[in-house]
Amino acid sequence: MSLQQLINELVRDVPDYPKPGVMFKDITPLLADHDGFRAVVAAIADHAHGRIDKVVGLEARGFIFATPVALALGAGFVPVRKSGKLPSETFAATYDLEYGTATIEVHRDAFAPGERVLIVDDVLATGGTAEAAVSLVRRAGAEVAGLSVLMELSFLNGRDRLKDLPIESLVTV
Amino acid sequence: MSLQQLINELVRDVPDYPKPGVMFKDITPLLADHDGFRAVVAAIADHAHGRIDKVVGLEARGFIFATPVALALGAGFVPVRKSGKLPSETFAATYDLEYGTATIEVHRDAFAPGERVLIVDDVLATGGTAEAAVSLVRRAGAEVAGLSVLMELSFLNGRDRLKDLPIESLVTV
Repeated sequence: MSLQQLINELVRDVPDYPKPGVMFKDITPLLADHDGFRAVVAAIADHAHGRIDKVVGLEARGFIFATPVALALGAGFVPVRKSGKLPSETFAATYDLEYGTATIEVHRDAFAPGERVLIVDDVLATGGTAEAAVSLVRRAGAEVAGLSVLMELSFLNGRDRLKDLPIESLVTV
Repeated sequence: MSLQQLINELVRDVPDYPKPGVMFKDITPLLADHDGFRAVVAAIADHAHGRIDKVVGLEARGFIFATPVALALGAGFVPVRKSGKLPSETFAATYDLEYGTATIEVHRDAFAPGERVLIVDDVLATGGTAEAAVSLVRRAGAEVAGLSVLMELSFLNGRDRLKDLPIESLVTV
């Protein structure tokens, strides 16, 4: 079975979540399957281009993939968290949601100057969170080497907001 | 340098967070240090007793340690999440905070009957979250093999609420 087939088999469609008419992609059966989870982490790490000094994970589901990918790549892990969760001085970026806005933060001292950073998340949807994360990493003095996700919802055109950024997705929906 | 010394060196004290008079233990410098992070994950995995089928991580910081520990132990990963974040049917448990309450959930179908589960989190404080997580795992039909944390704040007496449960902490504050 190919990795794509494995992912499609282990990601569960949950209808009408978080609201009526939406088909939610539930990754928990994939995470519960040791071999499937391990294969996904290995594939994300394999797709990284060049030296990676730090892997950034986006709270909360991004942490799940980003931490083992960091360990696989010999890199450190840096969390990008929701507003108010990081204790030291931060840079913050606000982005639009369907209704309202959200703010994410990174510690100002999270990177050494010029470090190369891979951003990891579970899903690329509209690209709003990823775009905000890219801006945070750059403001903190590091270089964004790429974005890697398990799943890309291509009908939401997230790639269009992230021009010039290498993007890897293991499956496209 | 011992693992305890390494952790004490890489965990940063942030005064007056989240409120005046509290000294917050900031784990982000440890996570950013590849060798330190890897050593901590290996130590948590080494301390597991017997067969572990699933590793449970508690949202959000618990995910950071639980996912690589699951991969190291040949186990699957199961997230315990804050209320409203899991898409399928859940069991929920509510516990007391200093002011108010919090609710966490696990998917009802997260475990096969009798699976042995290691619960992983970053910090054991009052034990309220851990106690709620233990109850969720048991209601979902699995056996709690133990609780493993990076850091135990022993002055908060979390162990007293978790009698008969094997608890491993890498450092005690």
